[in-house]
Amino acid sequence: MAGTVIQHVLGRLEEVGVGDVFGVAGDYAFPVNDAIVGHPAINWIGCCNELNAAYAADGYARTRGVGAVCTTYGVGELAAMSGVAGSYAEHLAIFHLVGTPNLATQEGRALVHHTLGNGEFDLFHKMAEPIVCASTIMTPHNAAAETERLIAAALYHRRPVYMGFPGDVADMPVLGTAQVPGLPTSDPERLAAATDAVTTALNNAGQACVLPGVLLRRLGLQHAAAAFVDAAGLPFATMFGDKSVLGEDHPNYIGMYVGRLMAEPVRAFVESCDVVVMIGAMLTDGNTAGHTVRLDPGKTITIDHHRTTVGSVVYRNVEMADILAQLSGRITNSPRRPDIAPGTLEPISGDGDDAITTEALYPRLAGFFRPDDVIMTDTGTSSLGLTFAQLPQGAEFHNQTLWASIGWATPAAFGAAVGAPGRRLILITGEGSHQMTVQEISQFGRHGLHPIVFVLNNSGYLSERLLCRDETIAYNDVAAWNYAEIPHAMGCPEWFTARAGTCGELDEALRTAERATTAVYVEVVTDTYEAPPMYKKLHENVESFYSVP
Amino acid sequence: MAGTVIQHVLGRLEEVGVGDVFGVAGDYAFPVNDAIVGHPAINWIGCCNELNAAYAADGYARTRGVGAVCTTYGVGELAAMSGVAGSYAEHLAIFHLVGTPNLATQEGRALVHHTLGNGEFDLFHKMAEPIVCASTIMTPHNAAAETERLIAAALYHRRPVYMGFPGDVADMPVLGTAQVPGLPTSDPERLAAATDAVTTALNNAGQACVLPGVLLRRLGLQHAAAAFVDAAGLPFATMFGDKSVLGEDHPNYIGMYVGRLMAEPVRAFVESCDVVVMIGAMLTDGNTAGHTVRLDPGKTITIDHHRTTVGSVVYRNVEMADILAQLSGRITNSPRRPDIAPGTLEPISGDGDDAITTEALYPRLAGFFRPDDVIMTDTGTSSLGLTFAQLPQGAEFHNQTLWASIGWATPAAFGAAVGAPGRRLILITGEGSHQMTVQEISQFGRHGLHPIVFVLNNSGYLSERLLCRDETIAYNDVAAWNYAEIPHAMGCPEWFTARAGTCGELDEALRTAERATTAVYVEVVTDTYEAPPMYKKLHENVESFYSVP
Repeated sequence: MAGTVIQHVLGRLEEVGVGDVFGVAGDYAFPVNDAIVGHPAINWIGCCNELNAAYAADGYARTRGVGAVCTTYGVGELAAMSGVAGSYAEHLAIFHLVGTPNLATQEGRALVHHTLGNGEFDLFHKMAEPIVCASTIMTPHNAAAETERLIAAALYHRRPVYMGFPGDVADMPVLGTAQVPGLPTSDPERLAAATDAVTTALNNAGQACVLPGVLLRRLGLQHAAAAFVDAAGLPFATMFGDKSVLGEDHPNYIGMYVGRLMAEPVRAFVESCDVVVMIGAMLTDGNTAGHTVRLDPGKTITIDHHRTTVGSVVYRNVEMADILAQLSGRITNSPRRPDIAPGTLEPISGDGDDAITTEALYPRLAGFFRPDDVIMTDTGTSSLGLTFAQLPQGAEFHNQTLWASIGWATPAAFGAAVGAPGRRLILITGEGSHQMTVQEISQFGRHGLHPIVFVLNNSGYLSERLLCRDETIAYNDVAAWNYAEIPHAMGCPEWFTARAGTCGELDEALRTAERATTAVYVEVVTDTYEAPPMYKKLHENVESFYSVP
Repeated sequence: MAGTVIQHVLGRLEEVGVGDVFGVAGDYAFPVNDAIVGHPAINWIGCCNELNAAYAADGYARTRGVGAVCTTYGVGELAAMSGVAGSYAEHLAIFHLVGTPNLATQEGRALVHHTLGNGEFDLFHKMAEPIVCASTIMTPHNAAAETERLIAAALYHRRPVYMGFPGDVADMPVLGTAQVPGLPTSDPERLAAATDAVTTALNNAGQACVLPGVLLRRLGLQHAAAAFVDAAGLPFATMFGDKSVLGEDHPNYIGMYVGRLMAEPVRAFVESCDVVVMIGAMLTDGNTAGHTVRLDPGKTITIDHHRTTVGSVVYRNVEMADILAQLSGRITNSPRRPDIAPGTLEPISGDGDDAITTEALYPRLAGFFRPDDVIMTDTGTSSLGLTFAQLPQGAEFHNQTLWASIGWATPAAFGAAVGAPGRRLILITGEGSHQMTVQEISQFGRHGLHPIVFVLNNSGYLSERLLCRDETIAYNDVAAWNYAEIPHAMGCPEWFTARAGTCGELDEALRTAERATTAVYVEVVTDTYEAPPMYKKLHENVESFYSVP
């Protein structure tokens, strides 16, 4: 662990799982960039711009647990901010490495590029403070200790951290040492009390169920949660942002819980339970189908990352992993699984020259999914249309439901593909979202990756049409592109591309995609207002969506 | 000026010159978006993403004096930050309109999309504080007064301001009134003293010259500065970031002043003058050719926006416009114009199948320029290659020399084209820069604009190759695109496109561009290491570039 400041940091990042760093090089960051390229076990993954690099790191972390993005001072780090903030909202441990001007330049208040021209050098990392859980500017003296502090914070909170490296400092030898801290453990007494409280509540419940949350995936606790569900025989339902976190092929899965919008049997059952156990799930607007779920706090058990709440009692310093381990085998009053089949999409409809309706599109996509697929979806009609697509074993559905930044999915899919190279990656995005970050398509080709991309072209921001006052208003229009030409223009000449405007063309494209040995990029053209039922319901419920629960 | 909060603000922005607002719509911003679309004298100009929208507003402000960008809460405003920061560094008055969640949502600390999920709603506009000169969250009570405060600040400082509109507040009636403040005026006594000091210094100088700065263009004071130069008979030279701010066809223009890098006769003359008058110019690293200019502070007069400095005496509260008006006619000791011809590029070389070298490329581009062209260039080899291209009358050279964010030029050119629709717009960008923000090409087509675009493809970030330790290192490579296919793929089917890999192909493309009635997009392919002389000199001078002057 000797060596320079940047070598030390990279060594430790590699030990906690960072195998690839996404970024854009820049002169102030050269010492950091050089060290990454020179590291034997870390790959430099150049992106087209910094926001896309941050999104890619986010996608990578979804498949690998941690991620890293490297940008230059000022221009680069600020451009990445919305992506890093998204990783904060969505609980991803991202290391943001920023190369800054050398100390003499900073101390001299020099008028240099990538600054505001006011001699201030301490502004940008302070701007980032609200969107990271810990932050530091490295020195040779603090590097060892700060590296441990930041790694621990990123892993404990599953949030981004900011690491600033003045150019000259990056290459200085580390002065000082630090112990690698142990993993945080639960307060044994509170853990026992929480375990007893949960056990008692569940064993006394006539009926109960689980709502597993996406934090389980972030923490790698899906198996622990499944073990608890299995041992207790508990049925479970899933909210939108948590989709697929426990297998939708699991016998205890009763379906998607989307409040009052759809799937009424699931809502009726969940809300009638004597106990509902939320594990790492959040009652955000996106997760609650626009504030239409109604859970009685008195009947709700919440197992959060570092605390458990049973009714009105909060048990702090109880780690999710610990209480899940304790609970398995303690629940003796196995509830009866209700007789609810997971809501699925209607059978595939349409063929030949038929237009691609909602009823034609989403069942076809659902039928296309295979076990272990990694499915990346942008916020919008396209992802909501897949709500009831029951996924096969091991398939993962990823969506940025809370931060909800459109355009995220294309670069995030690239990052996920780098992070999970052995799995089939499917990107489903709307064309308005895709335009935001389209250049990252080129990186799939550059790295020999073979994603399957569906771009749903409905002539504008359909989500916005469904939420605004006048669906025809000009700000919801986007430029009309020839999407199927994008891969070739961006240097992916061997991809299979198609423009599907009819069911027959879509079927043909799907058949080709199924057996393709190259990447696949399909533009799917629908009517401007072709919205899935979930979004139509949200549209009808728009006042509730923007109200306070 | 009655009406709602947003109507009031838009009415005032229109009065100060905002005719177009660039942006991306979003649900929290719908009331703001609706009002913009509904305003009879303001156009909504949708962009592909928010960073590009901020860059476009920046480019627009360069041609119109003010600009505006509108984004949604969180995801949108953070994505725009690097662009807004660039406008701060480069002295552009930009109004950033942000639509935020309604007050009940904020007061209820609701868990809603585009937030960090922590119930905090006051983080993002505070993050923006270092990159704006004034900021507010509108209320019905403060709207009238805050609008005047922010407009005055933006115009006084020529910097961005942040205007936050909670969704419900935007549509509430304005409560309160405010006077439109008068323009700031100089302290008469200090103005007189400064005028006397400058006059005395110049009348006593054996030889003197002017270095006009880009702030003159920002303030619309080019004619005033030209009048001063004319009346005093002063020769002038220009630094890189100030290129073309006073006409390069002016008889008093002696050429570009690039320190010790090139154009030695200009350097020798400027540094030998008894008095050098800088007017709105900054001694940044980009402007000083990597800290190689040497100006004696004792012989330097600096006319800044709000103060004038003569030697060691600072005259504060002296407006640039006022002192320029006072000075005209006061200088009686007309200096002799030195016998220096403005440095120009070498004659055009190469033809037929010859490769496109530096000597072939930049003289051809220089010869292509016409009076009144608006020339937008990205930071990098491409812009530095044009340093000595002497521009015809009225032609403007725009570059983001201080903030130096690559990718800026493509969307900024779009904004400039919207701002100056009657002028020929030429975009010159490197391919690494272009990849960052390429999607905005589609907006030219959507709005029927006819730019002439040159994308210089040298297989990577050549600027970085010239500044880093190992020019072949992987982080300077970019994906290989088929650039000439981009316009068609992005919905600009009628553009003339070409890929020029030889001098003959370039000549043919230039001839077509010259007479084209459509937009033109030419990929110009050069060798990986084909750098202009200025950049080679900077490369040789790299240690000085990163030192403190």
